[in-house]
Amino acid sequence: MASFYEDNEDLRFYVEQYVDWQSLLDATELNPDSDDAFSDLDEAAEFYRSVLELVGEFSAEEIAPRWKELDTQHPRLEDGFAHDGPAMAEIFEQLGALELHGMCLPRELGGMNCPFLLFNLTAELLARADVSVAAHNGFHGGMALAMLLYSGLEGSTRFDPEEKAIVETRFADEIAEIVAGEAWGSMDITEPGAGSDMAALRTKGVLGEDGIWRVTGQKIFITSGHGKYHFVIARTEKDEGEEGDAFSGLKGLSMFLVPTWSEDEQGQRVLLASFDSLEEKLGHHGSATVAISFEDTPAHLLGKRGEGFKLMLQMMNSARVAVGFESLGVAECSWRMARDYAAERESMGKTIDRHEMIADYLEEMQTDIQAMRALAVQSAFHEEMARKLELKERFKVYDSHEERERVVADRKRHQRRARRYTPLLKYLAAEKAVEIAQRGIQIHGGYGYSSEYGAEKLLRDAMVLPIYEGTSQIQALMVMKDSLMGILRDPKAHFERAAKARWRGRAARDPLDRRVARLESLSHRALQHLMARLAGKKLGELRELPLREWKELFKTWDPKRDFALAMLHAERLTSILCDVAVCGILLRQVRQHPQRAELLERYLERAEPRCACLHQQITTTGARLLATLEEPEQDEAAVS
Amino acid sequence: MASFYEDNEDLRFYVEQYVDWQSLLDATELNPDSDDAFSDLDEAAEFYRSVLELVGEFSAEEIAPRWKELDTQHPRLEDGFAHDGPAMAEIFEQLGALELHGMCLPRELGGMNCPFLLFNLTAELLARADVSVAAHNGFHGGMALAMLLYSGLEGSTRFDPEEKAIVETRFADEIAEIVAGEAWGSMDITEPGAGSDMAALRTKGVLGEDGIWRVTGQKIFITSGHGKYHFVIARTEKDEGEEGDAFSGLKGLSMFLVPTWSEDEQGQRVLLASFDSLEEKLGHHGSATVAISFEDTPAHLLGKRGEGFKLMLQMMNSARVAVGFESLGVAECSWRMARDYAAERESMGKTIDRHEMIADYLEEMQTDIQAMRALAVQSAFHEEMARKLELKERFKVYDSHEERERVVADRKRHQRRARRYTPLLKYLAAEKAVEIAQRGIQIHGGYGYSSEYGAEKLLRDAMVLPIYEGTSQIQALMVMKDSLMGILRDPKAHFERAAKARWRGRAARDPLDRRVARLESLSHRALQHLMARLAGKKLGELRELPLREWKELFKTWDPKRDFALAMLHAERLTSILCDVAVCGILLRQVRQHPQRAELLERYLERAEPRCACLHQQITTTGARLLATLEEPEQDEAAVS
Repeated sequence: MASFYEDNEDLRFYVEQYVDWQSLLDATELNPDSDDAFSDLDEAAEFYRSVLELVGEFSAEEIAPRWKELDTQHPRLEDGFAHDGPAMAEIFEQLGALELHGMCLPRELGGMNCPFLLFNLTAELLARADVSVAAHNGFHGGMALAMLLYSGLEGSTRFDPEEKAIVETRFADEIAEIVAGEAWGSMDITEPGAGSDMAALRTKGVLGEDGIWRVTGQKIFITSGHGKYHFVIARTEKDEGEEGDAFSGLKGLSMFLVPTWSEDEQGQRVLLASFDSLEEKLGHHGSATVAISFEDTPAHLLGKRGEGFKLMLQMMNSARVAVGFESLGVAECSWRMARDYAAERESMGKTIDRHEMIADYLEEMQTDIQAMRALAVQSAFHEEMARKLELKERFKVYDSHEERERVVADRKRHQRRARRYTPLLKYLAAEKAVEIAQRGIQIHGGYGYSSEYGAEKLLRDAMVLPIYEGTSQIQALMVMKDSLMGILRDPKAHFERAAKARWRGRAARDPLDRRVARLESLSHRALQHLMARLAGKKLGELRELPLREWKELFKTWDPKRDFALAMLHAERLTSILCDVAVCGILLRQVRQHPQRAELLERYLERAEPRCACLHQQITTTGARLLATLEEPEQDEAAVS
Repeated sequence: MASFYEDNEDLRFYVEQYVDWQSLLDATELNPDSDDAFSDLDEAAEFYRSVLELVGEFSAEEIAPRWKELDTQHPRLEDGFAHDGPAMAEIFEQLGALELHGMCLPRELGGMNCPFLLFNLTAELLARADVSVAAHNGFHGGMALAMLLYSGLEGSTRFDPEEKAIVETRFADEIAEIVAGEAWGSMDITEPGAGSDMAALRTKGVLGEDGIWRVTGQKIFITSGHGKYHFVIARTEKDEGEEGDAFSGLKGLSMFLVPTWSEDEQGQRVLLASFDSLEEKLGHHGSATVAISFEDTPAHLLGKRGEGFKLMLQMMNSARVAVGFESLGVAECSWRMARDYAAERESMGKTIDRHEMIADYLEEMQTDIQAMRALAVQSAFHEEMARKLELKERFKVYDSHEERERVVADRKRHQRRARRYTPLLKYLAAEKAVEIAQRGIQIHGGYGYSSEYGAEKLLRDAMVLPIYEGTSQIQALMVMKDSLMGILRDPKAHFERAAKARWRGRAARDPLDRRVARLESLSHRALQHLMARLAGKKLGELRELPLREWKELFKTWDPKRDFALAMLHAERLTSILCDVAVCGILLRQVRQHPQRAELLERYLERAEPRCACLHQQITTTGARLLATLEEPEQDEAAVS
């Protein structure tokens, strides 16, 4: 029987050799002594593998062969509700029957209490078959976990330290519905006038005199937004944003859980919001993209008023990691399809995979996919550990003050890494999925352009990946901001890291170590260049100040002008930092698993000239373009 | 009234200031004294502009607004014939009424005798509205010209030197049908087992005892292949190809003109071939992509038996130039759509075209489009001049031996340049059209992914450009082969050119000149590296030989092994040579039109780091990958 898990050696390396399942198990099994818990790591790992085998076979046998149905049977609006196409609906009946929606939920809520990493790995398998299935699947279990998370954060979930179990949680009924496969959720952020710019959101939340919150406004481009439960970001506070402060409008946002229908006594659905339309789009056709209007729709406030943006960020990281795995699935499918075609198709007396240029494409595709997976698994691991340790703290699952200290320290470490890796993953994986799907078409020649073979469907599906859950440009800006703030917050640590990398680049014994260190040095030089050029006249101020006071000075800068060069080069910097992160992860893999050296070597060979070029662009270009952006303001000044 | 000509300043620069219309006019008006000829260049130029204004307005007003109809009304197969969708059919009725199909045909054949460059410029205008309209349009007048060309080459067209007019041509009736808008042609090459690899073609042409040729076989992916007249490449000679010689199979191919139907006495169409199916494809939906089977279909042999490949090459160059202009239209549309959206859409307190990264994208898109246009106009000019001067020679349109010598020398010069520029144009323009369409979607965010706004249609349309009329990879191999052969043919001239570029790179007065020369030097170094590494042991042989004998030695090399590194890096080398060609053309523009310096500067800023990176990749990578390609053969050797 075909299996997308069994046939994937690189994926199996992570599951069977690399992932620190012990840490995940320890963080996940809050009650290791219960009868339901695994007796040991082996038993747990065995179970996890069996889940991957199940989903791997289901993806290969039940979903992948239906790609054309999924692509052509668009969801439709009928009687006020949006309905999935027949193939999509059948697949989700089957997925429900497999009881996968509870995979990562605690057992006391009807789940299987698996690590969330397992969910992400299954997302790759599903996405290799059809990315809209993977995406829609994520809006089931993932949303139930979000309900639990938000309830945990606001204190409406009670964990009994004796029983070591959740004995009460605010959205228990909703979670049970989702686990049973009867409902799913969505995250409603975008509005007609505001996507990446959340400060411009206008949907309103109003607290009635009856103590009930109600939301009013339209949300668009909502993936899987045809479900019952909607996390809705709405404005509750008067805060139009201050002139010149792009972030001030965010403080007035709150997060709500909003059911879009209720059931009457006869079990008939009564609409509480209006499903306005389904977006016709380039790809992702199995998945519904919904425009929805709320008008005085009753809503549950999550957390406190004004915490909306903060709470959204809590989920955003997970959502972005998930897009990394979706991208991986699409790319894996494109690469395999192209590889298999190239191994069959003959031209000029040999199969085209023996033609140098095609061989080069295929190797680059494979190498990039392995890089994506390295970054994806690492991001997912740290993100999950951070979340789980946070719950441990909150639920006070520790025996001593020392253990608590350790949990806190570990949580912070994982948080830092998750924050570093996640935007890099979202950026790299989405961009590469598009590139690889495009290459896949090109390798197929005319057959790639034909709708019959499926290569073109993968590009159409991939094109949304750099757009949804935060565009590539937003990821790049986050990376740039975090990198510069990191230096400003602790310049000394930065310069020590830079010196160490420089040293390793010359003196490390292992040549691979040296090459990775040199790449790292290059990233430091790019960053330092941006810092130094932040603004000509500011540089003078910086030079005169001790390092520890940089941060204070920085607060007085005008982000619009002073950071222009960094914003201009944000994507280039991000691209370098992706390569540095991937190489760092692969180098650590090589130390434990020497057979991975070949992959690192392959990756470095392509990363080195790429990063050199990006570094040159960052350090030598941009001034001219920035001058053109300043011009109009000068003109205005000249006129007045 | 909106006009795609009037609103395009860069395009108007070429038409109104740059193009050497005098040379084109001289080469086109074989009888400048006739009553129909233009009285002077001004009158001609005025007329050419009026054609561009007409097509510019027609494209903007009549085609562009119908993009969605063109995208959704696929052609359909009915009663054995393929029919265009209603919008496509109506547009071609209008185009026929404008009498544009005869634009470049001689007046004596019912045409307007305009330079072919004018046709190409209108192709950009049409493609900006809808690329499938532009492509289909090309299969009208372009195919009539091909009939005239092939007839001219084989000697079945009679030009009267006294009248200075064509008085007889083999396909006069067919040409008249096309000019009247009643028929069109196509070029049928690809077969299920053979696309780029023409030596593998299997369609057969057999000469019957009745003296009539008949062709049998299936052709697929035939753009506009639902028309009456088909240029069909078929095998007529027993030539299965020699082991190890990929090109030997080409010698057995011949070229035929095959009508797919005839009219009976009642004017009813009688099918002579079978339209098997229409390809469902990613984009280009207005245009029919046809699979067609011939079975003993009567055919007219063009030229001599075995000249098929040679004759195809005659048309291929023109077809590739045309794809350059199609690419330009798609890219121009993507860029303008993205630019206009970015100027409207606000985020974080300003329109997004003021955000550094988006401004950078938009500027790069614009710069690349201007580069594409520079290369396209230049390629088209030389290609047309070469063709026209060839006809002048053939028709003996010269007054003296000296004039003939001049015509021959000019023709050769234009041929060399056309041969150099055309594959670079096809490669660069097609690749950039895809990249720019993709950027266009990304700038639109979620709106770009939606089918409502049209950005995604442009990517779907663009994706065929790097595939049809010779894939990007085929262009790259041609460029690489021509470059290396150029050195081998005349190593001394190469080293002189290289020395001159090195000198200019240091000593030229104008800094732009120096920068362009340095880029050129980089391309020479990349080429020399590939030459030197062609094969380790061959290098020794080369060193011992005088330069003039390199070519002889080269004949003994095994292209499969010895050229592997060059084939691997063919696309990278091509990319550098595109930048060098564009910069060279722009530098020449700057000398006459100093206002173009700003464009060259913009282009260089992006080309310099790009070429440095490609040079690094060419000179430092590849050995490892090539070793993996050699492995299996070694294994076989080890086993045997």
